[in-house]
Amino acid sequence: MATHVYIEDIGQYAGQEVTIKGWLHNRRSSGKIHFLTVRDGTGFIQAVLSKSAVGDELFTTADHLSQETSLVVSGVVRADARAPSGYEIDVKYFEVVGKSHDYPITPKEHGVDYLLDRRHLWIRAERQQVILRVRHEIINAVRDFFNTRGFILADTPIFTPAACEGTTTLFPAQYFDEQTAYLTQSGQLYNEANAMALGRVYCFGPTFRAEKSKTRRHLTEFWMVEPEMAYADLNDVMTLAEGLVVSVVARVLDKRRGELKVLERDTSKLEAVQSPFPRISYDDAVKILKEKGLPFEWGGDFGGPDETVLSAQFDRPVMVHRYPSKVKAFYMKPDPDRPEVALGVDVLAPEGYGEIIGGGERLADLDLLLARIEEHKLPKDAFEWYLDLRRYGSVPHGGFGMGIERVVAWICGLEHVRETIPYPRMLNRLYP
Amino acid sequence: MATHVYIEDIGQYAGQEVTIKGWLHNRRSSGKIHFLTVRDGTGFIQAVLSKSAVGDELFTTADHLSQETSLVVSGVVRADARAPSGYEIDVKYFEVVGKSHDYPITPKEHGVDYLLDRRHLWIRAERQQVILRVRHEIINAVRDFFNTRGFILADTPIFTPAACEGTTTLFPAQYFDEQTAYLTQSGQLYNEANAMALGRVYCFGPTFRAEKSKTRRHLTEFWMVEPEMAYADLNDVMTLAEGLVVSVVARVLDKRRGELKVLERDTSKLEAVQSPFPRISYDDAVKILKEKGLPFEWGGDFGGPDETVLSAQFDRPVMVHRYPSKVKAFYMKPDPDRPEVALGVDVLAPEGYGEIIGGGERLADLDLLLARIEEHKLPKDAFEWYLDLRRYGSVPHGGFGMGIERVVAWICGLEHVRETIPYPRMLNRLYP
Repeated sequence: MATHVYIEDIGQYAGQEVTIKGWLHNRRSSGKIHFLTVRDGTGFIQAVLSKSAVGDELFTTADHLSQETSLVVSGVVRADARAPSGYEIDVKYFEVVGKSHDYPITPKEHGVDYLLDRRHLWIRAERQQVILRVRHEIINAVRDFFNTRGFILADTPIFTPAACEGTTTLFPAQYFDEQTAYLTQSGQLYNEANAMALGRVYCFGPTFRAEKSKTRRHLTEFWMVEPEMAYADLNDVMTLAEGLVVSVVARVLDKRRGELKVLERDTSKLEAVQSPFPRISYDDAVKILKEKGLPFEWGGDFGGPDETVLSAQFDRPVMVHRYPSKVKAFYMKPDPDRPEVALGVDVLAPEGYGEIIGGGERLADLDLLLARIEEHKLPKDAFEWYLDLRRYGSVPHGGFGMGIERVVAWICGLEHVRETIPYPRMLNRLYP
Repeated sequence: MATHVYIEDIGQYAGQEVTIKGWLHNRRSSGKIHFLTVRDGTGFIQAVLSKSAVGDELFTTADHLSQETSLVVSGVVRADARAPSGYEIDVKYFEVVGKSHDYPITPKEHGVDYLLDRRHLWIRAERQQVILRVRHEIINAVRDFFNTRGFILADTPIFTPAACEGTTTLFPAQYFDEQTAYLTQSGQLYNEANAMALGRVYCFGPTFRAEKSKTRRHLTEFWMVEPEMAYADLNDVMTLAEGLVVSVVARVLDKRRGELKVLERDTSKLEAVQSPFPRISYDDAVKILKEKGLPFEWGGDFGGPDETVLSAQFDRPVMVHRYPSKVKAFYMKPDPDRPEVALGVDVLAPEGYGEIIGGGERLADLDLLLARIEEHKLPKDAFEWYLDLRRYGSVPHGGFGMGIERVVAWICGLEHVRETIPYPRMLNRLYP
C-alpha cells in the first residue's frame, strides 16, 4: 500500500499515490461517481471514486458506507482549486476498517444537551475539532510566551489543606483517614512562594470552583495560567498581561486562520488586538457605566452585564485598575496614595466577553497583611506559611490569572464556554 | 540606578554597572571585605563589598545582613575565572528591601519532615531550585516533542463520573447535590475518544491515586503525560515512547548541564540513553529474574524490586512487552497469536529507577471488549460511552502514560520523588 500521509500534509504529495487512514464524514453520489469526504483528525478531503477506477465490487461497497465508518483509502492526490483543502484524491482502492451503524450525530440539528451527552462523539464534528485545535494553539502560545521570557513552570498543588477563604465555592475531597482536602481555586499563594525562590514563575493547571451559577462564562473545572514575579509592581503586571494577550492572539491569527474561517470568526476584530491597551481606573469605569445609564454605584464589583458594557467601549481589551479594596481579596496591596483602592487590575476582552484576566500587586508588608487577615476574619493559622514570605526577605511582587476557556471562547467567537474544552464540567454535567 | 539584569544573563554585561534584585544566600567577611552570595531565582553570584567602595555606613550595615534578607545591589560586573558563574560584582551600592530574622533553614542539616513542613522556604535552596528547573525543562521538552509531531493537546477531565475500575485507589470529591465525582487516575479512556476525533492527541495534567503506599516512587498527586494515536499498534507505541524518552534526556543534557552538575549527576549514564532501546518480552524478563535468583513465577506483575533488577541489566531504558493479560487492564488488546498475553509495554528506566511509562495497544473489537468487561465484573453502564468508540468506526489504536515525577527523579538522580514537585502530596503530607 502507498505511504500513509496525513491530510494536513497532503499538499506535499500532489501527483503521487498516498494512503489516508480516517473516517467517512459524508458521502454523496452521482450515479457513476461517489464523493467521499474523509477526515483523519488533521483535516478533511474529498475522495473521488469511479466505477472504472475501483471496479464493480468496491464501487458497490461504497454504496453502503455510512457516516463514521473507519476506512483506509489509497489513491492519487490531485490539486483542485474548487476543493476546500485545494486537493482531492482519485481513489484506486479502499478498505473498511470498522463499521458504523446509525451514528447518533447526523448533519441535522441536535439540542445541546443531546450533544453534550454524546460529547465523546460530538468532538468529531468539524466545528468542535477546530475549536479544540485553537485551544491547543492558545495553550501552547501561552507556554511559549512565558518560557521564552525567563519564567519557570512551577506546578502548584491541586489538593490544598485549608479552606483559606471560606468553603462556599470549594470542592471538598476525602483524603486519607477522614481528612479533607480542598481542590485548588488558584495557585496564587503558592506561586508567591515559588517567585521568592525562582524569581519569575507560572503555574498552569486545572482549577475548581463550586459556583452554582449557570452562565455562559462558568465551568466548575477550568484551566488557568498564573504568572507571578518577584520585584514587580502593578505596572509590571499590566505590561505582562498586555504582552501575553497580544502574543496569544497574534499566534492564533498566524497559525490557525483556517480554523477561524471554519468558525466564521470576524478576524478584523482580532487583528485590532494590539498594544497599547487602554488602562482606565475603576473610577473612570464607573463614570462610563453611569453615562451608559447603568444603575451602578462606586464601591461594588462589576457583574457580567457591567463588564459587557465596559468592554464594548473599546476595540481591544481594556485594563481596569484600582478597584475598591473592600471588593478585592485580602492579599491585594492597597494603593499607598489612596488606601481605599487596591493595586489590582482586571482585563476585559472586547466584544462583550468580559473578564479574562485578574491580578495585581500583592501586599508585601507583614503587619498590613496581618491586619487584613483579621479584618476578613480569616484563620491566621492556615496562613502561617504564607506569612513567612513576608517574614523572610519580603519583596514587592505581583501576577495574575488568565482563564483559558474564556480566552478560547473570545478568540473563537463562541457563545458559551462549554465548547472550549473536550469534556466540560458544569452544575449539572459530569458525564461522559 | 543601573539597569536591572538577571544573574543568568550577567555574562552579557562584563565591565558594565548593573543592578541585581535578589536575596542574600550567604555571607562571609575578611575584615575589610564582605563577600555576599546573592541569588535572584535565575542564579547565584558573589558580590564583593569593600569599605573603600561603599563607605563606612553601608559597610557596617552589611555586617548584620542575615540569610534571605532581600536586597538590591548595584555594581560593576567583573569576569572571574574562579567564580562558579564566571563573574563577580564589585558593589558600589546596596539597599535592603526586606529583613529576615532567624531564617529557619540554615546551612546545617535538617530532617526531611522539618524541611517538608517548610517546603515554601526549602525551595529557595540551590539544590531544590535546580531540580525544579530540570522539571520545567522536562515538561517543556515533552510538550515540544508532541507539538512538533502533529499531536493535539486535548485536556481530559479531572472530575470523572464513575468509579470504573473500583474505588480502592480513587479519591472521591463531593460534587453538587450529594453527587460524588472521582478524581481522575488517568485520562486514557477520554484520550481514546479524542484520538478518534483528532487522530493523534495527548493530555498532560495532574492525576490522583489514593494508594496507601509510602515508597520513594509514590505521590498521591502527580503529573502524567498521555499520548494516544488512532491507527497505531504496539510497535508504533514503543517507537513513540522510545523517541520521547531519548528526546527529553537529550534536551536536559543540552539545556541544563549546569543544573545536573549542581546535583552531581553522572551525566555519562544519561548520555547512554540512545535509540534503540532493548525490547524484551515479559517471558524473557521472567527468565532474567530467575537467573538472578529472584523467586518470581510467570503470571504475576513485577514489583518495585523486580523492576530494579531488570532495569539494572541495561545501560538505557528497557521496554518489556506482552505481559500476562490477567495482570493488565481490561482494555488491553490480547495478542492475537497468543491471547494469554496482552499487547502492553512498560518502559523501565535504568539505574534501578523502575517503571516510567506504561501503555500499549487497546482492544478495538466491541465483542471482545464486552467480554472483558464482564470477566472483570465491571459495570457495563459506566462504559457505554467508551463502547461507542467501538461501535462507530473503531480503529486499531494505542498510547501510553509517562509519570513526570519519576522521570524527574531518574534524570536528576534523586532517591525519592518528594523533591521532584514544588508541593508533594503523600499519605501523610497535605501541607503547606
